[in-house]
Amino acid sequence: MSEAEALSGYRGLAFETLKKIEAEIGDLIRITKGAQTYEGILIPRSEYGDDKHVVIKLRSGYNIGVQITPETLIEKIGRGEKPAFVAPPLPEQNPALPKVAIISTGGTIASRVDYRTGAVRPALSASDLYSVVPELGNIARIDAQILFSLYSENITPAHWTKMAEAVAVQIANGVDGIVIAHGTDTMGYSAAALSFALQNLPVPVIFVGSQRSADRPSSDAATNLTGAVLAAAKAPFAEVAVAMHETVSDTAIAIHRATRVRKCHTSRRDAFKSVNAKPLAKVENNSLTMLVEDYRKRDPARTLVLRPKFSEKVALVKFYPGLSPAIIDWYVGNGYRAIVLEGTGLGHIGNSCFKAVKNAVEKGVIVAMASQCVWGRVNMNVYDTGRDLQALGVIPLEDMLAETAMVKLMWIFGQTSDIEEAKCLLKTNIAGELSQRTTYEETGFQ
Amino acid sequence: MSEAEALSGYRGLAFETLKKIEAEIGDLIRITKGAQTYEGILIPRSEYGDDKHVVIKLRSGYNIGVQITPETLIEKIGRGEKPAFVAPPLPEQNPALPKVAIISTGGTIASRVDYRTGAVRPALSASDLYSVVPELGNIARIDAQILFSLYSENITPAHWTKMAEAVAVQIANGVDGIVIAHGTDTMGYSAAALSFALQNLPVPVIFVGSQRSADRPSSDAATNLTGAVLAAAKAPFAEVAVAMHETVSDTAIAIHRATRVRKCHTSRRDAFKSVNAKPLAKVENNSLTMLVEDYRKRDPARTLVLRPKFSEKVALVKFYPGLSPAIIDWYVGNGYRAIVLEGTGLGHIGNSCFKAVKNAVEKGVIVAMASQCVWGRVNMNVYDTGRDLQALGVIPLEDMLAETAMVKLMWIFGQTSDIEEAKCLLKTNIAGELSQRTTYEETGFQ
Repeated sequence: MSEAEALSGYRGLAFETLKKIEAEIGDLIRITKGAQTYEGILIPRSEYGDDKHVVIKLRSGYNIGVQITPETLIEKIGRGEKPAFVAPPLPEQNPALPKVAIISTGGTIASRVDYRTGAVRPALSASDLYSVVPELGNIARIDAQILFSLYSENITPAHWTKMAEAVAVQIANGVDGIVIAHGTDTMGYSAAALSFALQNLPVPVIFVGSQRSADRPSSDAATNLTGAVLAAAKAPFAEVAVAMHETVSDTAIAIHRATRVRKCHTSRRDAFKSVNAKPLAKVENNSLTMLVEDYRKRDPARTLVLRPKFSEKVALVKFYPGLSPAIIDWYVGNGYRAIVLEGTGLGHIGNSCFKAVKNAVEKGVIVAMASQCVWGRVNMNVYDTGRDLQALGVIPLEDMLAETAMVKLMWIFGQTSDIEEAKCLLKTNIAGELSQRTTYEETGFQ
Repeated sequence: MSEAEALSGYRGLAFETLKKIEAEIGDLIRITKGAQTYEGILIPRSEYGDDKHVVIKLRSGYNIGVQITPETLIEKIGRGEKPAFVAPPLPEQNPALPKVAIISTGGTIASRVDYRTGAVRPALSASDLYSVVPELGNIARIDAQILFSLYSENITPAHWTKMAEAVAVQIANGVDGIVIAHGTDTMGYSAAALSFALQNLPVPVIFVGSQRSADRPSSDAATNLTGAVLAAAKAPFAEVAVAMHETVSDTAIAIHRATRVRKCHTSRRDAFKSVNAKPLAKVENNSLTMLVEDYRKRDPARTLVLRPKFSEKVALVKFYPGLSPAIIDWYVGNGYRAIVLEGTGLGHIGNSCFKAVKNAVEKGVIVAMASQCVWGRVNMNVYDTGRDLQALGVIPLEDMLAETAMVKLMWIFGQTSDIEEAKCLLKTNIAGELSQRTTYEETGFQ
């Protein structure tokens, strides 16, 4: 093992201190800081780690980052068995089963933990998968591909393009469904992006993440992944969706339409909720039940139309009392093509911003209105503020999520630079992101 | 009636067209636009109305704004009885009842509708109140004051100062509680602002709004107002709170702690939800039940400490894939004192923004992290991204709402310009906005 691998991800003071005591990833170490003592297995850090923390896995299974100073005492108290990472042999695949491709982009679900050492390997190979969730072999023939190893907060529109292209390759290979393993933080944005980029889908594309890493007893990684593979292999729909826990219990996985889903809790396993829509389907006891009637049907004969380009010249601005209208001017001055306003209530912003909005529209920038309420529909006909904003040229986004609207406009300006065509696309329901009416039961609001 | 009053709020083409047919507010008119015909009572427009819409109240009770062009045909088909607005005599007040001051700032709840004409009077006098909700006379002696007549999206931090000062005057007058009628759009922000501005409160201050105007059969105005007055008159707590429907039914009013409440639906009557906390109390069958044990007790002997100043040099920035770090630079370059980031998940942003955050902190700007998930607690110790951001100087906001954090920082920089004092105040629980632990039942997440 090279020195760099032995202390993977450590830099600066942390690296020097660990090197001095000849510690390697997987060793048992003790850190003494004043009256506090921490003991655990040294685990690697990501490429973006700072140089001030040493991260160890405590006996409880939790990881902790201890900030070190030149005064901190670090001792090596046990030599860890080094991570073997010898892939178990792939199980024999049943040729009668559907074929599912798993594309890994990173995130908690795509971390493979070595239980003896606590080391985390930010990757998800087919053999890793089978060793973590052997049941997958009963559902589908799995092919796994590592596309990125990224925390999802670092995923950008350029990565959406690569994800869409990777899906297109798998579809050309003739798979029956695709699973994309993704960090949960921005999974809703990426899933919405692929809903627009992958037109005329023949098979399902299911995003999946986990809120707790696979080395914690409460992990949702295995159940979410099983639900996602089952949906990819067998669901009757051909849309982009997100598979995550339906409730805090382990019994059911909700399959959300990608343009309607939002991460609504920082840590709970049922953090993902369909907003202004019912989930597409539900997986329970290894069986998938559709919850809506209106969906695009699976049809392997259909030909995918790949439109993977996105423009980054689209902004999302949340309105609040005291927001400076100069922010709107800034975006207009810097060549942005569209601004999604997260207004208040039915779709309002203060009249101090009207002049900036008027100027933006006159300069050819699309200004569109969603609501920061999250649930419900904007209605800009009820109050004067809404009517005035419409008269200025602001486009109401109906019951579309602000995040989805922003992604949709990034996609639109990846397809066209014609503003009238862009407006027309914005108002057209392309991937279930928009409906003219929402019934009471469909809102998902509790 | 003057010509201006006869067509109150109309300008330009709309005004000229209506003047030509000698229409006045309250008249029954018919508008024909192509194949579409609309009939209803002409109602006035606000001072910010555009010059392109004529607004009529349909027979259904709904208002509709019809955009007119030179081709639109408008006919006067009936002469309305003109609004009388003769205040009914004030009922005799029972001197044994508690005294409640109602301060009106505008919004749907503060609109008094003349049922014959559909005309809306944006004001709320004591006699208006009694004529709409006569039951109030059984709960308290009411004194009503019109402070503003504003749609709440136009309320700014300067208005929060005036509201806080108006409350202080009423407390000096010896009232037993205060009700603030407010538009629902930014009511959460204003209520949070007054939680910080009104320190050491002796009596309750209850914000109240309505999601449906009083002229609609489904209006929540009367029940919300009754619940708010009851809480102001009799609640055992002395905090700032928000009174709104608990569910879509008419039976119960939830009393939310002001720093924990958020408008989470564009139109439903139960749009307001306590986030990461239980509501303070509930009003049902004219009786108030406390739902929490930990609250500041009502004590008329306590002396209010008024700290009504706010700084507008605080920004709220929602992170999303593709966010330009130049926005952070812009705020730093324009003299902002603090930036609240609405990060993803447990409190993350992409590493493309790290350099801008580092620069902001080095320039003495407070950068604090909340989560766009809305529910849950940020935890910046779990992943490298969080630890790295903390190492750059970013302050985790625990379970504080992003909106409340933004308001709190505006208040903090109205009190001090010392950054260390500001940081200390930010991390201190001042008005129930922050807790070290949230139990499962308290989160309000469903």
